[in-house]
Amino acid sequence: MTGPGPPPASAINDPDLLRDFQHVWHPCTPLSDLENYPLLNIERADGVYLYDKNGGRYLDVIASWWVNLLGHNHPRLKAALTAQLEKMAHVMFAGITHEPAIELAERLTALTPDNLTRVFFSDNGSTSVEIALKISLQYWQQTGRPEKKRFVYLKDGYHGETLGALSVCGLPLFREKFDPVLMDNLEVAGPDCLRCPFGLKRDSCNAECFQPMQETLAQHTEAIAAVIVEPLVQGAGGMKMYPPVYLKKLEAACRELKIHTIYDEVAVGFYRTGSRFVCAGHGLSPTFLCLSKGITSGTLPLAATLTEEAVYDAFKGEFQQFNWFVHSHSYSANPLACAVANETLTLLEEPGFSEVLAQKAETMRRAGAVLEELPWCAEYRQTGMIGALELVRDRENLTPFPLERRVGFRIYQAALKRELFLRPLGNVMYFMPPYAVTDEEIKWIIEQAAAAVEDVLGKE
Amino acid sequence: MTGPGPPPASAINDPDLLRDFQHVWHPCTPLSDLENYPLLNIERADGVYLYDKNGGRYLDVIASWWVNLLGHNHPRLKAALTAQLEKMAHVMFAGITHEPAIELAERLTALTPDNLTRVFFSDNGSTSVEIALKISLQYWQQTGRPEKKRFVYLKDGYHGETLGALSVCGLPLFREKFDPVLMDNLEVAGPDCLRCPFGLKRDSCNAECFQPMQETLAQHTEAIAAVIVEPLVQGAGGMKMYPPVYLKKLEAACRELKIHTIYDEVAVGFYRTGSRFVCAGHGLSPTFLCLSKGITSGTLPLAATLTEEAVYDAFKGEFQQFNWFVHSHSYSANPLACAVANETLTLLEEPGFSEVLAQKAETMRRAGAVLEELPWCAEYRQTGMIGALELVRDRENLTPFPLERRVGFRIYQAALKRELFLRPLGNVMYFMPPYAVTDEEIKWIIEQAAAAVEDVLGKE
Repeated sequence: MTGPGPPPASAINDPDLLRDFQHVWHPCTPLSDLENYPLLNIERADGVYLYDKNGGRYLDVIASWWVNLLGHNHPRLKAALTAQLEKMAHVMFAGITHEPAIELAERLTALTPDNLTRVFFSDNGSTSVEIALKISLQYWQQTGRPEKKRFVYLKDGYHGETLGALSVCGLPLFREKFDPVLMDNLEVAGPDCLRCPFGLKRDSCNAECFQPMQETLAQHTEAIAAVIVEPLVQGAGGMKMYPPVYLKKLEAACRELKIHTIYDEVAVGFYRTGSRFVCAGHGLSPTFLCLSKGITSGTLPLAATLTEEAVYDAFKGEFQQFNWFVHSHSYSANPLACAVANETLTLLEEPGFSEVLAQKAETMRRAGAVLEELPWCAEYRQTGMIGALELVRDRENLTPFPLERRVGFRIYQAALKRELFLRPLGNVMYFMPPYAVTDEEIKWIIEQAAAAVEDVLGKE
Repeated sequence: MTGPGPPPASAINDPDLLRDFQHVWHPCTPLSDLENYPLLNIERADGVYLYDKNGGRYLDVIASWWVNLLGHNHPRLKAALTAQLEKMAHVMFAGITHEPAIELAERLTALTPDNLTRVFFSDNGSTSVEIALKISLQYWQQTGRPEKKRFVYLKDGYHGETLGALSVCGLPLFREKFDPVLMDNLEVAGPDCLRCPFGLKRDSCNAECFQPMQETLAQHTEAIAAVIVEPLVQGAGGMKMYPPVYLKKLEAACRELKIHTIYDEVAVGFYRTGSRFVCAGHGLSPTFLCLSKGITSGTLPLAATLTEEAVYDAFKGEFQQFNWFVHSHSYSANPLACAVANETLTLLEEPGFSEVLAQKAETMRRAGAVLEELPWCAEYRQTGMIGALELVRDRENLTPFPLERRVGFRIYQAALKRELFLRPLGNVMYFMPPYAVTDEEIKWIIEQAAAAVEDVLGKE
């Protein structure tokens, strides 16, 4: 099955890009693009800017896949990392503990809803979700309800791409090639506020769209272990935004029916929606809370799955019962990453931080008004520091551009020429800069983004 | 479903351990042990030693879950990390590339068998395996063989604990609670050299035990996407060691039947078995090679899945075919981790390094002879820098100690008093120190380990 070697020199002239082209397999990248649209070769980063080897500068509009909160090259995060490096980069986390992890667990449980008392560390969003799924399954098995082994997830939901996490994703682009081997879970139509079938508005409705969820939970109660959601914003599904009343209904229903709730706040935690965490900000108490991405402010991989004491208690039997949670990752609770996470929390919790952030969100909201005037704007929506512009072919009927036209991708290319690095999700452009962005930069981002849309669609 | 708060003060007197006890959920840890056997609170690490807050020192006999190759606190790895930190901690890896990743991909493909030309980066061993499984599935789908969607794995095999990776694990302790939701794969009895059913020896046999694999591959050829193995040493399954002839037979059979091979060298790569990689050292060419753990010498989470150009080619269609690999992790190819990995490779490839390592392995082999004299020794086995002592109740009949007696765990506790940190797998003690260990330390480890066995079993 040995194949040919890597490809020969091609249309790519840059020697470093050619080296990349010959040996790297990039994530989520149509391979045919690599020859036609050169990658950026980024050499350094500072604040909200990325700098490439050719002297180009790009504003990191999407915070490097939603991970960077406090800006690149942050002196205090670097200092926290190097201070920990002088003590210990890493040590295993079974039979051993260390101060960076103890402190982080203490702080996370203090900052999240009261019911969340336990922290299980891992490396990325996918594993944080897999851990919640597995703990939920084992919990029901060990409390006399082994038939509870299906998960409910929302259409357009995204929760990671390892096969367990992918089994609770509602996005065909990500899952359809793997459908034959995925778990038998339950997909439910979720909120779709732009195209609300009830003709209501997200700021005044009563989550009438909760009905299909209610029905699924009622119909399959005995089989359901947990419901998983991205609270308030469905990220990879196109930055779809929905109101907290949906979550309140979900919590009430799950509490009544004895079903776990899993909040995947990997993308939306740490003030991204305006609240420190969505759950805490809206008086909600999920059974599990998954965190990653911003936890180290875009420095190092780290993830945490939080849960409550009643869950942990079900895993406490004597050794001979073999009912503890047999799960591990080698770099679980990596001290370097924990130290950076602790300093990230210190910075996020400094007095006035969230107020300044709220002002920046307001700046984004005001600036975003210009996007609503674009003839292809279906909606400009915003939750905290996430702004999203959904583009349509026909504004009247909200007819989407066909994916094949690659409207978002072409706008991305046009925006690069304007020194913006953004990466639309299909026809949805979004703005999710590091919180270090200034008011002036926010306005400039929106202006340039609008111009990039005109560059592409204004000429058709 | 809100439970009670964390537990009150208990038998644990140390205030930091109490904080840990109240909020941390440790991986792979029987919870009932936490009150009775205090965790070590490790504060710093240097070379092969871990230092706790109480002034205790422990030799890291198992390299912190097999990750640490060059010793803790290595000045050159720290320098590589801080140098990269001055440029850029992280940036997303779609639409963007960077020198640390390009260099690492180039070096990994140069150091591994010629057929492996492509590198997909992720964060841990589980994801490196999930990526191989998913690429294999999608490859067959896109080359007209969608029915090839089952994986073959060995009894006692371990490949990670996300649900996809767990579906190819042959260890009941890890998988049985989750069996109802795992993929429908094929488990095959693998080599069991200590208790060889053919009465042969691993250094002179012809892998007669390949027969069940041969039968499974023949019987299910059309349904099988790939076979996954831990080459030469099955780690979590108890450091079971088997000869390369098994792998040669596997490669020949899979080549003939058009089945992919996945080598999980997460634990055994980077000279752990004596060869740089098992595949490269034995003239083998797997379709996929999974690497993690030692790739950063125990500094930071990072993983790589390598594959060949013929596989990559099947993902190259135009955008409209939607046949690229839709998979990503936020911290994919983290520049800090890549920079440390590059420096790790530089150190491992320095002239004379592998020769010195071979001498250390020889020292371990000679010192290990003393273990064979223990009345509970079923076998002392060794492959490169992995030594393993399998303990049995009855040496004549190789009758194992029942797991409930926790022989390994009790020896672990006894060894701590002797300043060794080891963590047996059931009844198998093993020695997998950082390569920085000296000859004198190797001898001391083995002496102390033998004494710890006597401490526990000599009194019964």
